[in-house]
Amino acid sequence: MEYPSKVIENAVAALSGLPGIGKKTALRLALHLLKQPLEEVDQLGTSLVALRRDIKYCKVCHNISDEETCRICSNNRRDNKIICVVEDTKDVIAIENTHQFQGLYHVLGGVINPLQGIGPSQLNIESLLERVKVTQCKEVIFALGANIEGDTTLFYISKKLKALGVKVSSIARGIPVGYELEYTDEVTLARSLINRTTLSFD
Amino acid sequence: MEYPSKVIENAVAALSGLPGIGKKTALRLALHLLKQPLEEVDQLGTSLVALRRDIKYCKVCHNISDEETCRICSNNRRDNKIICVVEDTKDVIAIENTHQFQGLYHVLGGVINPLQGIGPSQLNIESLLERVKVTQCKEVIFALGANIEGDTTLFYISKKLKALGVKVSSIARGIPVGYELEYTDEVTLARSLINRTTLSFD
Repeated sequence: MEYPSKVIENAVAALSGLPGIGKKTALRLALHLLKQPLEEVDQLGTSLVALRRDIKYCKVCHNISDEETCRICSNNRRDNKIICVVEDTKDVIAIENTHQFQGLYHVLGGVINPLQGIGPSQLNIESLLERVKVTQCKEVIFALGANIEGDTTLFYISKKLKALGVKVSSIARGIPVGYELEYTDEVTLARSLINRTTLSFD
Repeated sequence: MEYPSKVIENAVAALSGLPGIGKKTALRLALHLLKQPLEEVDQLGTSLVALRRDIKYCKVCHNISDEETCRICSNNRRDNKIICVVEDTKDVIAIENTHQFQGLYHVLGGVINPLQGIGPSQLNIESLLERVKVTQCKEVIFALGANIEGDTTLFYISKKLKALGVKVSSIARGIPVGYELEYTDEVTLARSLINRTTLSFD
């Protein structure tokens, strides 16, 4: 594709480097930006650079943070006896949005994925084991993706945690709320049968 | 949604202002940028600001340009007797990609859209009429969207052009190549019948 101007070509090249944004979408975004006030575009550019330059990670849980210790880890009202292990910041935000979890988090920064060359040493696993040892943590809950990489990571870390005598659990796999039974895949359906919950009528 | 850090909140807010990008996609893009080298993110930010700040428009056809007169208008090998009227730069790029058109363009900068408050005076119509008057233009081809706004604009401008004695045409409406007849809407099918092309066997 030939672009009428060098500045638009540069902008399209930079934008189409983002995940899920192809050349056509990049061009659409660039033409949209042309119609916006300069201050607004300036703010977009500045905030992206600031994001990459000024980002900090919590030294306890490795989540993204403005301070040395993140808001969740430094919150005294949260239960520091329970640690929820997640892959990414996205997952922390998702779980926080449920308002159902009052414990702390531990962000691994990925999952074990040999195909992408990600081994246990590249993840924040050592610091998790150290945390469990040092604090009086009673339970570690795994909230990882329901796929091979997630399961491998869960298996690898939980074996190490077992030796420390801490309770280890995983979030339930089952049929999502609102789903039809007939459209659920067999593996999920089988798991949901094995991990069925007893109903109590009192 | 509550974000773990102010810088990520700012970046998500700025990104989700772009068309077709919601909060979730914005967060995904922001987390992607965190993993990129600083120079790359810096280049993205700079190129977006440069785009908005340094953009020029061709004084002849109003297309985006690096110079006072764009590459197409200043190209002596193009046919300056034919002007193709389009809504946007996107359309110029799309037509150029067909390699079928050797004339010049005129970018209106939009179409007449009373609902969005866009009237003829906000579009580059006067300069088109002036151009047709001054140059020895023989034909004006309209390549506008096949919708009410496009048709209104076509009707409005073509009435004014008729007075100048120039030939006016519009790109063909019909069934896209590769489409099935049964899935085509009635209006398109009706138009394609009315504007049928005679086949010659020689």
